[in-house]
Amino acid sequence: MRVLITGGGGFLGQKLAKALAAAGTIDGHDITAMELVDVVPPAMVDADFPVLAHAYDISDATPVMKSFSHKPDYVWHLAAVVSGAAEADLDLGMRVNLQGTINIFEGARSAGNNPVVVYASSWAAHGGDEPQMIVDGVELNPQTSYGTQKVIGELLLNDYSRRGLLNGRGLRLPTVSIRPGKANAAASSFMSSIFRDTMQGQKSNCPVGRDFPVWHSAPRTVVSNLIHAAVVPAADWGSNRNINLPGRTDTIGEMIDAMTSVFGPDAEARITWDPDPVIEKIVVGWRAHCTPGKGQRLGFKADDSFADTVRWFMEDDIAR
Amino acid sequence: MRVLITGGGGFLGQKLAKALAAAGTIDGHDITAMELVDVVPPAMVDADFPVLAHAYDISDATPVMKSFSHKPDYVWHLAAVVSGAAEADLDLGMRVNLQGTINIFEGARSAGNNPVVVYASSWAAHGGDEPQMIVDGVELNPQTSYGTQKVIGELLLNDYSRRGLLNGRGLRLPTVSIRPGKANAAASSFMSSIFRDTMQGQKSNCPVGRDFPVWHSAPRTVVSNLIHAAVVPAADWGSNRNINLPGRTDTIGEMIDAMTSVFGPDAEARITWDPDPVIEKIVVGWRAHCTPGKGQRLGFKADDSFADTVRWFMEDDIAR
Repeated sequence: MRVLITGGGGFLGQKLAKALAAAGTIDGHDITAMELVDVVPPAMVDADFPVLAHAYDISDATPVMKSFSHKPDYVWHLAAVVSGAAEADLDLGMRVNLQGTINIFEGARSAGNNPVVVYASSWAAHGGDEPQMIVDGVELNPQTSYGTQKVIGELLLNDYSRRGLLNGRGLRLPTVSIRPGKANAAASSFMSSIFRDTMQGQKSNCPVGRDFPVWHSAPRTVVSNLIHAAVVPAADWGSNRNINLPGRTDTIGEMIDAMTSVFGPDAEARITWDPDPVIEKIVVGWRAHCTPGKGQRLGFKADDSFADTVRWFMEDDIAR
Repeated sequence: MRVLITGGGGFLGQKLAKALAAAGTIDGHDITAMELVDVVPPAMVDADFPVLAHAYDISDATPVMKSFSHKPDYVWHLAAVVSGAAEADLDLGMRVNLQGTINIFEGARSAGNNPVVVYASSWAAHGGDEPQMIVDGVELNPQTSYGTQKVIGELLLNDYSRRGLLNGRGLRLPTVSIRPGKANAAASSFMSSIFRDTMQGQKSNCPVGRDFPVWHSAPRTVVSNLIHAAVVPAADWGSNRNINLPGRTDTIGEMIDAMTSVFGPDAEARITWDPDPVIEKIVVGWRAHCTPGKGQRLGFKADDSFADTVRWFMEDDIAR
């Protein structure tokens, strides 16, 4: 079984690659090779099988087609321009998030082996006229260009799956917190940095109040769900290959309290509280409550507590 | 006020152009010029203002940009590859329905005057996991490539409107019956031809049973709704610029009975009843029942009876 991961240099792509390398198999099949693709050269991952790292922009169809000429059996399409950047530059988001996704799906089509394609959609799919409590079957009304482009990918994933060109599985990822690494252009960046940076001795600003609720999931859980998505039988997905991924709702204040209970009070003391109207305008419309019926039925998981997330972050991301 | 109509050579585009020419105004503003665009040269329309007809493929951005260099104030984007053709040729549908629509919206963006863009989406947006009774706010789950491409256009219409690049209004058109002209590659083609052709002395086959229900609207009513869409104030649309257009539900049998009541029994006698599994497979999943809440609140109309539709067809389309 050959694996291809776009966004393979990103934090999720790297964690996913390491988890697959550690397992050595997917759904009982040995992994024989893994290709990591990102716009900058992805860091290498130790594995008992060959790992290839390629740097290219997925909005260029030529290298995408070359990657798919190797007929990957499992594809994780995680590459994207994040929300803040796609909002600041419509053309960039249209090129990478829309045309790039079409290129990946066309690559899968050209491979001709009906590969499993796990597609990272986003909670930014939700907003606008949708109810505060998201349930299955709600008309998606994204209020960012990023969310719009992600939902377009969902629709194409369905259509290409229905036509038998690929075997798609789309997950609307909750806010992934605590995300390691550096702050990025995602409007949700602070939802990780107020924990990540303060636990590592830095100050970090929270642009919203303590009572701001967040629908979130830990990196470990998201990676586990990304792998689970590849093994759920095609027939179980039905006519819609896209689901609301389970997560949990906590307010920023509850998340901070959980951090303090695990880490002690030093980190919390490094949080500043300057409101940011630009960030607030984007995130205030995000939905923080969900009953992910189909996602739960298909066996996807949520965290038991944000305290677990803090412990996992300390084990997985600070220790190294 | 300058008008641009894509698909201006099609039956809806022509009826719309004639209705606008007859009115001479939109929302109280004089029409000063009208440009009709289609892939084949559109028939000219008599008007008291200049009418231009241009033949080009909207998937080519260059002529689209040229049309928008004249800064149209009102745009009706009706051009599309129909359902059967988009299902038979994915590339063609992606090129015209998806890239062509992006080109139109990019044209509006380049014009810089925030034009009103009325977008013809389709009832093919609905299907799959959706309930049998469509209400506002249902997650769109199209089961054709045509429907998928139309919904993608809806999402882009919302995003471009939200960004202030155009002033979009998307209408999910019911099956338009009785459509004049020749049979086309739409899976719904028979829903017009069994009336249109039989009333004009031809035989026509109905590939589904008499009890097959249809959500439909007459051409006159659809044209009137397309014009109404341009005059509803932007603020009334809210976060979602796309609506389920009102229509009415009748079975094929009820529609035939209405034809017979108006036209006499000769037409009905020319209908043949050979089932067509290919057509049936596509149309069986179409939704025939809807409560179009927002569409009604915004003042869009449905027909009172299919008998009216038959009378209008005889007046508008047979007489000439």
